[in-house]
Amino acid sequence: MNYKNKIITKKKDNFSQWYTDICKKAELMDYSCVKGFIIYHEYGYAIWEEIKKYLDKKLKENDHKNVYMPLVIPETLFNKEKDHVNGFKPETLIATIGGEEKLQEKLIIRPTSEAIFADFYSRIINSYRDLPKLYNQWCSVVRWEKTTRPFIRGNEFLWQEGHTIHKNSKEAMDETLKILKIYNDMGKDILAIPFISGEKSNKEKFAGAEKTFTIETLVDNSRSLQCGTSHYFGQNFTKVFNVKFLDKDNKIKIPYQTSWGISTRLIGAIIMIHGDDNGLVLPPFIAPIQVIIIPIQNKNHKVKKKVNNCLNKLIKSNIKAKIDDSDHTPGWKFSEWEMKGVPIRIEIGLNDIEKKQITLVKRNDGSKFIIKQQNIEKEVVKFLNKINDEMYQNAQKKINQHICKAENINEIIKIINNGNCAKTFWCENESCENKIKELTTATLRCILPEKNNHVVGTCPICKKEAKKIVLFAKSY
Amino acid sequence: MNYKNKIITKKKDNFSQWYTDICKKAELMDYSCVKGFIIYHEYGYAIWEEIKKYLDKKLKENDHKNVYMPLVIPETLFNKEKDHVNGFKPETLIATIGGEEKLQEKLIIRPTSEAIFADFYSRIINSYRDLPKLYNQWCSVVRWEKTTRPFIRGNEFLWQEGHTIHKNSKEAMDETLKILKIYNDMGKDILAIPFISGEKSNKEKFAGAEKTFTIETLVDNSRSLQCGTSHYFGQNFTKVFNVKFLDKDNKIKIPYQTSWGISTRLIGAIIMIHGDDNGLVLPPFIAPIQVIIIPIQNKNHKVKKKVNNCLNKLIKSNIKAKIDDSDHTPGWKFSEWEMKGVPIRIEIGLNDIEKKQITLVKRNDGSKFIIKQQNIEKEVVKFLNKINDEMYQNAQKKINQHICKAENINEIIKIINNGNCAKTFWCENESCENKIKELTTATLRCILPEKNNHVVGTCPICKKEAKKIVLFAKSY
Repeated sequence: MNYKNKIITKKKDNFSQWYTDICKKAELMDYSCVKGFIIYHEYGYAIWEEIKKYLDKKLKENDHKNVYMPLVIPETLFNKEKDHVNGFKPETLIATIGGEEKLQEKLIIRPTSEAIFADFYSRIINSYRDLPKLYNQWCSVVRWEKTTRPFIRGNEFLWQEGHTIHKNSKEAMDETLKILKIYNDMGKDILAIPFISGEKSNKEKFAGAEKTFTIETLVDNSRSLQCGTSHYFGQNFTKVFNVKFLDKDNKIKIPYQTSWGISTRLIGAIIMIHGDDNGLVLPPFIAPIQVIIIPIQNKNHKVKKKVNNCLNKLIKSNIKAKIDDSDHTPGWKFSEWEMKGVPIRIEIGLNDIEKKQITLVKRNDGSKFIIKQQNIEKEVVKFLNKINDEMYQNAQKKINQHICKAENINEIIKIINNGNCAKTFWCENESCENKIKELTTATLRCILPEKNNHVVGTCPICKKEAKKIVLFAKSY
Repeated sequence: MNYKNKIITKKKDNFSQWYTDICKKAELMDYSCVKGFIIYHEYGYAIWEEIKKYLDKKLKENDHKNVYMPLVIPETLFNKEKDHVNGFKPETLIATIGGEEKLQEKLIIRPTSEAIFADFYSRIINSYRDLPKLYNQWCSVVRWEKTTRPFIRGNEFLWQEGHTIHKNSKEAMDETLKILKIYNDMGKDILAIPFISGEKSNKEKFAGAEKTFTIETLVDNSRSLQCGTSHYFGQNFTKVFNVKFLDKDNKIKIPYQTSWGISTRLIGAIIMIHGDDNGLVLPPFIAPIQVIIIPIQNKNHKVKKKVNNCLNKLIKSNIKAKIDDSDHTPGWKFSEWEMKGVPIRIEIGLNDIEKKQITLVKRNDGSKFIIKQQNIEKEVVKFLNKINDEMYQNAQKKINQHICKAENINEIIKIINNGNCAKTFWCENESCENKIKELTTATLRCILPEKNNHVVGTCPICKKEAKKIVLFAKSY
């Protein structure tokens, strides 16, 4: 008997099709009638709400305040910071008509809000007493993309963008790195994703930033997916937007800015990293449903009672549990909730009731456990933590398998051609970075942090003394 | 000694200036560099988050699912429902350039999302099993307004828009009225606003709706402010968007839709209804800070200890409390937190510590209470509830004072000219409605629900038998 009510492409046969199948069949998103814009459907949006809840709490604990800035940016304002505008202008959506009349000035639909925050700062910051300002906003942004993929790259996506301003460089840099740590912790705590994290090269940094730090992960074997960034702007924006403050020492000074963001792309990363041929596999602490309870004899009174009893116990312990008492067969339900990636399935039949037990199945590896029904809520909490850990470790193992050390350009080429990423030395010269890209199509994804910055080796291109150890990978 | 660090215009001298003063000086919003677009600043946004938290929970308890739809609507899609487009077209912002090229089709920045939901339904609904769908989205919308006022009317505002679709008319109408009740309950539970609630006339209903229900309140004495609406669409959208389903009886049928929304305008309503000459007065259950604790002898060790002890007790009981231990004088702090509308101020000085008491001051009426420090958290909870009730009752009283019964047109004119609202009979004829508007500049705000629809009286214009009792008021 075939319970596969929803058949999907196999992950290793066609990664890209497998990914799209899950997006659609797990009902995470739907295509809209507007090219390049997706509908964030209820199950996908619920995952985003879990990510938001976690991160919003962390940011508030660190004194960040949520605000909401205008959706549109006047063209002249947007044009002020030259690197920024050069980076973003090609992918902007622009409004030219308002109230049935041609607008006097074109309005850019925000692709990111650095310009509008910098302008705001210029009007509200006067004294050292006004600093720091730690703002964040949850919103959508629009970037006009030529090729799109659900959650990964789209004309509109949901994100948070943090924008902070500080009295000196150190404070701003500390903030940039503090956020990087919060993002990395989030990977471990709720996404079960071990991020590869470090600084971007000058060539790859954010348009307008002085330094960009990134969290990356490997998907589709060894392609690197940027999952979030934290930028140190120095005074790049504050200078051109004329933001100044009177310091304690009675001198007029120019403050320092940061910005940082993660987006619904994280949902894409979760699908790609954890998903399998049966569908989505959700990390327990972002799963909208953590436990699905399936009664084996659906109509039996005893089973009904026991199932409700279990549900209530779990809900009381703040576990997100749900009963599937629909008319489908148990087998149909198993495959349905596997597709939706629910971390734990609990099966309860007459046999289980007699033995005062329940059957628990872990989505991440399909393993089955017989649990005493008395301790169900404690056991489930243990399993949720265990599953998160296992998924994290498993992801880490896969990443490690794909990162290979290279000492010269031939090794780099071989590694990349074999579908892996190359960890190598670099002299910090952009021409050497360009040469490796030219020869491999891989890009410098990030500068790996080394203990005490202790690097001994030579650049694979110019053979000069290396200053950094870096990761080259093809980008997803 | 003058503690008024922030002087504002008096409410009765210049209502409009008073309102703007509070918006700015309580740091609820700021003007942005984009005409008509405001910045939702941290304190104002925090109030919105409280409203969201309450309503989102209620909607989820009623099985509504959050989703997110595209920001933009293709012009042809937007043009499909004729009444709808006629209502909204004049105030749309339109994008015409994307990725540095002229768009093949103009994109409307969503003023509301009926069209895009209807299009979505047409692709996902096939069978009666697919119904109902109960969706909601939290987002911003853009409406190109000629005159704007913070929170009340702006080019961009934050809101929730619910969109549901049902197998028959009754179910859709039940949903429309269920939401109206949820909105009214919200007024009582957290906003301390008694809404005047009922159906709109045909003339005043939403563009594209079959029936619109409204929640209104009176501000600036007797001007009516629409605070939210719930629409029954019948099949207006489903017919033109070709949404169909196969019912149980094997017949193809056309489903029925609703939509409903409340917005950041509620923040404006709160300011206008509850605020006074000392600033904002926040209802306790949407206040980002419910209790401000002010140490009278700021540097005294005993006072510091006691103040922290109080804070911890309150926070443990889930009360949003904060200490102001800044260097300002107590008097300065009193007026600062009055401006910000914090419902309860607690003062703790050496004298209080000796007597094992605290001083509690209610923002809504300035009354002072001496409380035993032992019971502080229980007492505060009681006071928060009491304040909400008092504010609600007080608002109700003010509204009642401004609603006057009128039996003929001269009475209506006199009532409106005296700065009140007229409750009167109506034959349901639009020409009579128009005549009253012409003679008074007041509009029919809503049809008041009457017990058993028992109406005995004559229309003040045509003298025919009245079918409804209605409220005429000038709109804010």
